[in-house]
Amino acid sequence: MRGLWLEDRQLRLREDLPIPVPGPGEALVRVRLAGICATDLELRQGYYPFAGIPGHEFVGEITAAPDQPGRCGERVVGEINLPCGHCPPCQAGRGNHCERRRVLGIKDHDGAFAEYLVLPLANLHAVPDTIPDEAAVFCEPLAAALRIPEQRPIRAGEGVLVVGAGRLGQLIALSLAGGGHELQVVARHPRQRALLEAAGIAWTGEDGVAAGAWDLVIEASGTPAGFELARRALRAAGTLILKSTYASRAEIDLSRLVVDEITLIGSRCGPFVTALERLRLGLDPRPLIDGRYPLAQAVAAFAEAARPGALKTLITCGDWD
Amino acid sequence: MRGLWLEDRQLRLREDLPIPVPGPGEALVRVRLAGICATDLELRQGYYPFAGIPGHEFVGEITAAPDQPGRCGERVVGEINLPCGHCPPCQAGRGNHCERRRVLGIKDHDGAFAEYLVLPLANLHAVPDTIPDEAAVFCEPLAAALRIPEQRPIRAGEGVLVVGAGRLGQLIALSLAGGGHELQVVARHPRQRALLEAAGIAWTGEDGVAAGAWDLVIEASGTPAGFELARRALRAAGTLILKSTYASRAEIDLSRLVVDEITLIGSRCGPFVTALERLRLGLDPRPLIDGRYPLAQAVAAFAEAARPGALKTLITCGDWD
Repeated sequence: MRGLWLEDRQLRLREDLPIPVPGPGEALVRVRLAGICATDLELRQGYYPFAGIPGHEFVGEITAAPDQPGRCGERVVGEINLPCGHCPPCQAGRGNHCERRRVLGIKDHDGAFAEYLVLPLANLHAVPDTIPDEAAVFCEPLAAALRIPEQRPIRAGEGVLVVGAGRLGQLIALSLAGGGHELQVVARHPRQRALLEAAGIAWTGEDGVAAGAWDLVIEASGTPAGFELARRALRAAGTLILKSTYASRAEIDLSRLVVDEITLIGSRCGPFVTALERLRLGLDPRPLIDGRYPLAQAVAAFAEAARPGALKTLITCGDWD
Repeated sequence: MRGLWLEDRQLRLREDLPIPVPGPGEALVRVRLAGICATDLELRQGYYPFAGIPGHEFVGEITAAPDQPGRCGERVVGEINLPCGHCPPCQAGRGNHCERRRVLGIKDHDGAFAEYLVLPLANLHAVPDTIPDEAAVFCEPLAAALRIPEQRPIRAGEGVLVVGAGRLGQLIALSLAGGGHELQVVARHPRQRALLEAAGIAWTGEDGVAAGAWDLVIEASGTPAGFELARRALRAAGTLILKSTYASRAEIDLSRLVVDEITLIGSRCGPFVTALERLRLGLDPRPLIDGRYPLAQAVAAFAEAARPGALKTLITCGDWD
């Protein structure tokens, strides 16, 4: 099959890849549409030692499911963690933190920038007919945004600041908008600001952030400067959610965390069921799309996605159009 | 009056200090017994720019209370933060995080290593008769220990590791013992270990800490090595409570916090009412006392308290014996 191959920081299109074979409890999924995420760009820069097919945001169709043939033809999105099922975190019901987990397109398991992928049936969620592919493909990052209120319930009237208005920051803002909070997003690029305005969400530049004023700050820029800004914006006894990974270690004033009784929460993958429900109820991420490429031009798609201020670049993975 | 004076990192006994005068809503307290805390040792080393009478752990007796003369004679302990009452945190009910707060013996307000101190009546809690001075004097650090379950309720069966078995670590362990958790304390010194054993609390050396195994880790050593150990001991999706201040900034792998969905919580002052109740119900901190000095020998008391592995050194502040 055709697929994008990553090895030694080089991306190249291959036509000679074998169609993967589903094992017990697994399904073969024909990929319809896949999205490029910051993690994909980092994989390419060598932050993680992955060789194989990248890509973990997708919508597709089940074409083989030996254990549940009745699910063939189902349009699905998929959770990206493949837990071992046996280690202590798995036994404790925290499969997303499995010590030996494989991760779709990120760790030890080929991903979505190809004609087909394989995932356990348990990872695959049926997409309601009313949600178009172009919205469903955002399910994984939207679920990650929706992880935040699972970890830290947000009370009505609280002030919530989102630092960063890229792919993830926009989805976080969309997921929080209209929830009865005071919401503001720190946005740098004109297009990011225009999107927020179109969604009725307040934005500010970095200089306009009120210091020590916010109950909850969500850091979604993934930059040390963004972390510093988030920390400054937070009130005493406030909560800072870290939603992005960082390329390097950061220096932190731990004493200040203690004296100000700050809570810092790392946040990763979230609930697909809730994300699908939000999409079904009308949350529309499609304005974030700023490019769509066929799989044959996937290398060019990566170049587009890496442009400063870029939002979501999609790759059509088969002959669907 | 007699008091201990700190200025330019020098401690000296003075006999010429004026007895402080209570303002509106305040009381004059004759100090009976005061305890030396790590913060006092840090003040002396110049970590905070305080000049005046240090000391913030005490038990005393109200000798003047112009606004509530009926409280004269009451034996009391006192909360250490003096909030302004007007700033946003005060208005939001978070007086402990007042932006202009003064702090007894730490910031802009003379403390307890003297014959008398002044505090707002609202800060002073009556001590039940059954609690002796030698236990009541631990009320402030015990309250700080009891802040932990206020911020992060501890579920039965959870594994709780306390890193550090000094003054605060011992009180945290005592406050958690018998609560239905799996509790272990990382203790370095033989006397610390013996105290834990006497209280029926499990301890281990640093080499014996299980990695990635603990649901909740409480860092009470105040050292970068202690923080590293705490981080290593924590399981994915676990919570790390920071209970001590640190002399320097620390380097943290923020990406690891995100991927492992770690929660980091800074924790400071706690509930005096709960602490008094625990003391009344039999929590006995007195085995931690390893020295008691008259105020006239307060400088020697500080030398004793700074000894590695030292636990609680007390200062008798008047002619009470």
